[in-house]
Amino acid sequence: MILNAFEMNCSGHQSPGLWTHPDDQSVDYKKASYWRELAVLLEKGKFDAVFIADVLGIYDVYEGSRDAAIRNGVQVPLNDPSYIVPIMSEATDHLSFGITASVTYEHPYSFARRMSTLDHLTDGRIAWNVVTSYLKSASVNLGLQQIPHDERYDLADEYMDVCYKLWEKSWEEDAVIQDKTRRIFTEPEKVHDIHHKGKYFSIPGAHLAEPSPQRTPVIFQAGASTRGRKFAVDHAELVFISSTSIHKIKETVQLFKEDLKHTNREADNFKIISMVTPIVAETTAEAEEKFEEYTKYASKEGALSLVSGWTGIDMAQLKADEKISYIENDAIRSTLKAFEHYTVKETASFVGVGGFGPVIVGNPTEIADALEAWMDETGIDGFNIAYTVTPGSFKDFIDFVVPILQARGRVQTAYKEGTFRKKLTGSNYLPHSHQAKRVQISKAEGMFG
Amino acid sequence: MILNAFEMNCSGHQSPGLWTHPDDQSVDYKKASYWRELAVLLEKGKFDAVFIADVLGIYDVYEGSRDAAIRNGVQVPLNDPSYIVPIMSEATDHLSFGITASVTYEHPYSFARRMSTLDHLTDGRIAWNVVTSYLKSASVNLGLQQIPHDERYDLADEYMDVCYKLWEKSWEEDAVIQDKTRRIFTEPEKVHDIHHKGKYFSIPGAHLAEPSPQRTPVIFQAGASTRGRKFAVDHAELVFISSTSIHKIKETVQLFKEDLKHTNREADNFKIISMVTPIVAETTAEAEEKFEEYTKYASKEGALSLVSGWTGIDMAQLKADEKISYIENDAIRSTLKAFEHYTVKETASFVGVGGFGPVIVGNPTEIADALEAWMDETGIDGFNIAYTVTPGSFKDFIDFVVPILQARGRVQTAYKEGTFRKKLTGSNYLPHSHQAKRVQISKAEGMFG
Repeated sequence: MILNAFEMNCSGHQSPGLWTHPDDQSVDYKKASYWRELAVLLEKGKFDAVFIADVLGIYDVYEGSRDAAIRNGVQVPLNDPSYIVPIMSEATDHLSFGITASVTYEHPYSFARRMSTLDHLTDGRIAWNVVTSYLKSASVNLGLQQIPHDERYDLADEYMDVCYKLWEKSWEEDAVIQDKTRRIFTEPEKVHDIHHKGKYFSIPGAHLAEPSPQRTPVIFQAGASTRGRKFAVDHAELVFISSTSIHKIKETVQLFKEDLKHTNREADNFKIISMVTPIVAETTAEAEEKFEEYTKYASKEGALSLVSGWTGIDMAQLKADEKISYIENDAIRSTLKAFEHYTVKETASFVGVGGFGPVIVGNPTEIADALEAWMDETGIDGFNIAYTVTPGSFKDFIDFVVPILQARGRVQTAYKEGTFRKKLTGSNYLPHSHQAKRVQISKAEGMFG
Repeated sequence: MILNAFEMNCSGHQSPGLWTHPDDQSVDYKKASYWRELAVLLEKGKFDAVFIADVLGIYDVYEGSRDAAIRNGVQVPLNDPSYIVPIMSEATDHLSFGITASVTYEHPYSFARRMSTLDHLTDGRIAWNVVTSYLKSASVNLGLQQIPHDERYDLADEYMDVCYKLWEKSWEEDAVIQDKTRRIFTEPEKVHDIHHKGKYFSIPGAHLAEPSPQRTPVIFQAGASTRGRKFAVDHAELVFISSTSIHKIKETVQLFKEDLKHTNREADNFKIISMVTPIVAETTAEAEEKFEEYTKYASKEGALSLVSGWTGIDMAQLKADEKISYIENDAIRSTLKAFEHYTVKETASFVGVGGFGPVIVGNPTEIADALEAWMDETGIDGFNIAYTVTPGSFKDFIDFVVPILQARGRVQTAYKEGTFRKKLTGSNYLPHSHQAKRVQISKAEGMFG
């Protein structure tokens, strides 16, 4: 069972309003100490990785304004996700880090160097959560037209191609020899210009960074639309899905497995995790009491601000007991689909604690049982564990639930050695069946091959 | 006397070929431990900051190829400059960090959030070295036309304006109140959309990050052309100049002081430092021996690869004893001016050890005397100390020279408390005379004012 902590460089990530709870320390997200201490805690709990979400905009669909998001601290203010990684890696030896970055935010040439740099500095503990961006407020501020959903994936495919060329094909394994006698740092003929000329990008040169421990970071992806699934089976090593319905999760896993059959990839290099917010206490009654208490601190306005942003539909325009129905718009279709048939009131209530995923409430054994049942019934490989209060939710999970899952042989009792990919798959590098290994540098102009 | 360590996230920064010296450990630049240990050393030596240079391309003018640069490890491979900062900040309490980033590499909206994030995580120990980019290889790979020299500064001016609006005017000081009783994280009416609409950028929205300890990072700049000086007096708090000629340094300082008079800025909020590579040992003879030894390890080919990149002139096309003469091209004019009248051979020799700045060789007292003389004769405020071998050069300087400068009251014996700007100027924020404080958010559409 893969265990990731689901985080974001802001306060109250998936539980809008819970920053008001006396136990929550997420208002300290700005400080290095917050991330340092969280990383130490998660490594003690043998978590695999921290999955760091990001958006580059403010939720501004609800009431046609960003005021509700700002007032309730709903993922705003929001800092850059990547600089907390060296803070956490310095405090740990094994914990890995999945950084969300959109293909519409930065040029792949400089982005690829950022990832290589982090992979070097962390000894290969880096994953990249590839997103194609859904917030209109982000693309407006970046001077981009909001690119239609399917075309975003075309751009993403080319972006991946460029990155693969830079990471996998530009520097040969033995290019850097640092031969002090012959005074050769790198053999120039083993560094290859990538000669990329595509629809969106033109990059003639070579990568600036030498090969890092994993070359390509572990590829995460979250997107369950038809086009998103195609992108995932082409690229992702770990896919993140979410639904409050176990049947929906099972169905999505089946769709992925079906899609995978049409590729050359081995199924065991493709993991699926889903989101869950566990609320655990020593007894069932105490856990339920805790849940009730959290509910009181949740912000319905904050929840509807999130849902409006996710779905592109202004929930303030609907009546509280009106059912949300599907309409075509620019937002992520699969997200809107997830809320279909719920009333606005129900939505506000369940998103208030646990965001866009299920909440499980119980004593340690009940939580462990529930996670096992979700895994076994759906075929997923693990979870993104979201918090209600931090670090309290993670501490409870580690103190109460992890030992049970360890005793049952479901989660690791010790870390394997090596890079994140080595821990996940046994190898530092992507397998040859992955398309990163198949990208070609143009032979016409290039020196490769 | 301000003391910065002049570094870059690569091997052999300003002494091409010296990576082959047995004492040099700069080939370990990829590892977190290299930066962690360097930071601890520099803080022990009471250095003010680490000035981290960067280019986003490979030197490819020499022989019309990047082979010489790659073979000799001349600033390639080269990692991102910003991720070593959290590594170093985690290991220190007071050392500050100047990060080089070009206004042509990334959109200001996402860049501004990066800087705010780092300023938060380091408790205000961040400076930004603003560059306008000179390497053609960088702009080609980013899909940019190489923008003419003076126009780059126009773009840079607008880029600064956008950043100032985001950092200084978007979030009021008391916008974030985190009032748990009233359940208000941030007061929406105190967060302002910047409504920026310029020639190069259009950014309607608000900054994503809440105000960081310094808001605007301390602004560094390096550029001594007429247009560069204009940019510097408009924006910079610390200017970095370099010349092997004390007269040239003095002349440049005078030009800056003259320019400053035509602004509203106070002269003491504008510091100038120059580069120097000290080679020190217990006795003069030992220091000279050391210098001779370093010279043997220097790479003339590497040096000419650097100079060709800096000046835009392929030194391989000139004869060894031919004097370099000034011709108009796209490179930095003032850089080429600096090499005018030297022969190619002389240039290769002096750039081989100490790069684009003077080397001073002597016993501890001689080095301290020389630094004092440079300061007093030129009017500069301090130095960017470059290394020949690392961390050895910094260690020697800290063991031998710093105690003398401390005894003479020239450098600090203890750090002041607070942010980098507080240490430099007594205040966390830019003074009201700085134009960052004068940028206006459009009142027509905006809510500010």
